Amino acid sequence: MEKIKQLQQDFAEFMTQIDFGGQPKELYEPIAYTMLQRGKRLRPMLCLLANEMFDGDKQEALWSALALETLHNFTLIHDDIMDQAPLRRGKETVYQKWSPNIAILSGDAMLTMALQFALKPKNGMHIAGLLGKVAREVCEGQQLDLNYETLSDVTIDGYLEMIRLKTAVLLATSLQMGATVANANEADIQLLYDFGINIGMSFQLQDDILDLYSDVETFGKRHGGDIADNKKTYLYLKALELASEKDRKRLEYLFTLRIDHDEEEKIEEVKAIYDRLNVKEVVEKVIAEYDCKAMQALDSINLPDERKAHLRTYATSLTGRKK
Amino acid sequence: MEKIKQLQQDFAEFMTQIDFGGQPKELYEPIAYTMLQRGKRLRPMLCLLANEMFDGDKQEALWSALALETLHNFTLIHDDIMDQAPLRRGKETVYQKWSPNIAILSGDAMLTMALQFALKPKNGMHIAGLLGKVAREVCEGQQLDLNYETLSDVTIDGYLEMIRLKTAVLLATSLQMGATVANANEADIQLLYDFGINIGMSFQLQDDILDLYSDVETFGKRHGGDIADNKKTYLYLKALELASEKDRKRLEYLFTLRIDHDEEEKIEEVKAIYDRLNVKEVVEKVIAEYDCKAMQALDSINLPDERKAHLRTYATSLTGRKK
Repeated sequence: MEKIKQLQQDFAEFMTQIDFGGQPKELYEPIAYTMLQRGKRLRPMLCLLANEMFDGDKQEALWSALALETLHNFTLIHDDIMDQAPLRRGKETVYQKWSPNIAILSGDAMLTMALQFALKPKNGMHIAGLLGKVAREVCEGQQLDLNYETLSDVTIDGYLEMIRLKTAVLLATSLQMGATVANANEADIQLLYDFGINIGMSFQLQDDILDLYSDVETFGKRHGGDIADNKKTYLYLKALELASEKDRKRLEYLFTLRIDHDEEEKIEEVKAIYDRLNVKEVVEKVIAEYDCKAMQALDSINLPDERKAHLRTYATSLTGRKK
Repeated sequence: MEKIKQLQQDFAEFMTQIDFGGQPKELYEPIAYTMLQRGKRLRPMLCLLANEMFDGDKQEALWSALALETLHNFTLIHDDIMDQAPLRRGKETVYQKWSPNIAILSGDAMLTMALQFALKPKNGMHIAGLLGKVAREVCEGQQLDLNYETLSDVTIDGYLEMIRLKTAVLLATSLQMGATVANANEADIQLLYDFGINIGMSFQLQDDILDLYSDVETFGKRHGGDIADNKKTYLYLKALELASEKDRKRLEYLFTLRIDHDEEEKIEEVKAIYDRLNVKEVVEKVIAEYDCKAMQALDSINLPDERKAHLRTYATSLTGRKK
């Protein structure tokens, strides 16, 4: 993935020209702390790859990429307050390191900065419009996620809608922005957007599986964290659907237990039920369907195959990660 | 103020065409609750008056007015979480009525909606740019306000900068947006902005005085609330500057007391010190200077006097309120 390394470097260099400082420092230090952490830069990469695919101006695309990364980081800062999460990417969250009030306010400033960055490209009006739309959707997705924490009858369709809004639309919009900056035609942009939605759904469902079935050291998170937190993931909802009356009642009971219970034992028991019902395989089949739809959309874009190669490789590396 | 009544009605009618509903309802109900409360609509009024002054298109200006009102309401929702305020305009705050998490998320969605509204006028790129700038400044002002709660050596200049960012810039930007939508020339827009800054400073300092010296029933807030809350207002900072060593120490001590102390007694004692030092008169002189600068700026705008009449009357009604 030479191409990705190069784009990551381009983006990192571009970031060095941006002033994340400012006064009062209590507002801007958490912003610099968040923005300057090294990460995959997934959304900027999708934006830049889409832009290159349509031979767009890189400088223009970099502003969109920065807007997307800033928007994404804003959501993390506010989500971490709501989830009372102490750590993010192995470092203290803003909420934890400073305070909830500072996290609220720094997040607000970042959402505003995302807008300001989105207005920079020549067709900034269009790009800012896309940013506004996706920001609304991400808020809606986060609200659904909060609702589902206390809702007892979450449906699989409801869960899919939540991850679509919370994760997939931002990946799809990243591609859309890159292609829009490059003045691609509407039909191709729509296909790219569909590709992004399907990749996003696949990516998130993959995450649900990895949380329980990954090689812990490589994945870098605690094993079975979703089960310990009683998160109603696709695995859980599918298991409820497939389970016998007895297993279903047991699962529902286990998902009411809080951390004072023996966590390891609970995770093992839930995993045993999942395994008996083959839910991992069922979810993998659903993921394969999303991957297939994604590739169909990419294939339909009116460009020679070689122009799509980098994006195809990158997307496969994202959805195909086995650890 | 026939004109203001008419514009308030225009704005109210315009608002009825906006859909503040949406799904999930947990996200949108607090937004409708906040936006549909009847209020002075100060920022929309300034925007619409400035627009009329330069004979702009009202429909275009209404979108800017709505963006400003939405931005303002977003700041209130998030500020109320930070201040743990139970009431706002006599009704439960969103934070109190729903939850802090919902208040964070509804506020985020409102900031995004403000951007979306700002993009509606023909020169939406320019209007959204102004919105982004002022949103950043308001965040900075709120952060300074949070800093000053715990900072022991707040200066008068620091306080003035805080109220400039927290209050004055949004009033100034409201006028600026209205004139920008009307394609006024840059020099006049700058004068109008300066007018707004000075009106805003006057308005906020007036508020500091009214908090202690107003007719309680008319002002509608508890008397001396700022003193009870140990808020370092201009009155307090000026008193510290003018006070004898003994009075200064006493004031500083009184401003460390929390609510378990006899509130009435504390307010009376502080007020007695203020009165002895004539701080009310000193602040009134500062206010008069801001009012004077405001009117100079308005006078310099290159338009016949009759076109400025409504704005002049409205501004005078704002800064001249004695209760």
